[in-house]
Amino acid sequence: MNKLTVGMVLFDRFELLDVFGPLEMLGLLRDRCEILMLAEQAGTVTSAQGPKVLAEVSLADAPALDILLVPGGIGRIAAVENVPFIKSVKALAEATPQVATICTGAAILARTGLLDGHRATTNKLAFNWVTEQAPQVEWVPEARWVEDGKYMTAAGVSAGMDMALALIAKHCGQGTALAIAREAEYDWHRDPDWDPFARMAGLVT
Amino acid sequence: MNKLTVGMVLFDRFELLDVFGPLEMLGLLRDRCEILMLAEQAGTVTSAQGPKVLAEVSLADAPALDILLVPGGIGRIAAVENVPFIKSVKALAEATPQVATICTGAAILARTGLLDGHRATTNKLAFNWVTEQAPQVEWVPEARWVEDGKYMTAAGVSAGMDMALALIAKHCGQGTALAIAREAEYDWHRDPDWDPFARMAGLVT
Repeated sequence: MNKLTVGMVLFDRFELLDVFGPLEMLGLLRDRCEILMLAEQAGTVTSAQGPKVLAEVSLADAPALDILLVPGGIGRIAAVENVPFIKSVKALAEATPQVATICTGAAILARTGLLDGHRATTNKLAFNWVTEQAPQVEWVPEARWVEDGKYMTAAGVSAGMDMALALIAKHCGQGTALAIAREAEYDWHRDPDWDPFARMAGLVT
Repeated sequence: MNKLTVGMVLFDRFELLDVFGPLEMLGLLRDRCEILMLAEQAGTVTSAQGPKVLAEVSLADAPALDILLVPGGIGRIAAVENVPFIKSVKALAEATPQVATICTGAAILARTGLLDGHRATTNKLAFNWVTEQAPQVEWVPEARWVEDGKYMTAAGVSAGMDMALALIAKHCGQGTALAIAREAEYDWHRDPDWDPFARMAGLVT
């Protein structure tokens, strides 16, 4: 198997687990995966929860990626209005064969227009806010994650780990994904339709 | 409720989800929780998976904490042999009323001697390595997490999220923990005895 180059987009006040849940799972591919932390400008980026992370490469300087990941977080509210940022994400998403979002990161990708006409999901408590950002997307209220063409979109926060394991299964085989879930002692929800949180949020009855 | 001040110990090649799974859950307490990233020296610390995180305070300069958290990761192998680091962790753990470890972070805390005679658990695939580091600890092979006095120890990687929610329930009430699990769309394993990974690892039959 070839090495996967994975780019994670950071922005001010990103959600910690949106970023590091998927990177834990992908990181357990070890030398079969290289992780690049990207941001509008290289430098320190502060998460919604406070901890600061280093983005080593700017979005504009990102090399060719196999997978582009876009997280959510409360910083999404400013991020969707940041036109140069959205343009940079769009250019990178167009150039990357596999693009995935976690939680309200779907709103950021949707604002590029690339999800128009595609099925997608997002965080359940922020569902109305996200879907208002891009009504041309076919938003799915009840799903742990949704795959449509080269796009994968996960539900809120923790769902990113389940989707990351599905990405690993797709690119590296189901056995590898199962071994990583076991190594991380993670109870992988393998069914993309498993979503008790949609009901709790009143999105389905 | 008073504000919780939480200190997370970083060291070179720490495991990403050991750190950011619990910090996601605690961070959802928002202004009821302050997170401090600590390391032997303040500065950038590189995770086992590659991403770099900023430690803003050295272990020696840490203020009074309500909760001290110690993660694991492959860097534990060097960390347990780093005598000044273990001494600093010991001093901080002695001064802190609630101390918790995630995954192989139990080996680091155990090396201080503070877990001697206490019940504790750790990562299941690294169980033999960890228990050899401190045979005076009463190691529990089958547990998602173990609480003994002021110490809480979680099983591998993902178990830190379940333990963090148990910490939140203890310090802020069960309702708060349930609301945070829901907000993070996390399927909280609330039973500390739930541990299919011990059997998978051949630690119990």
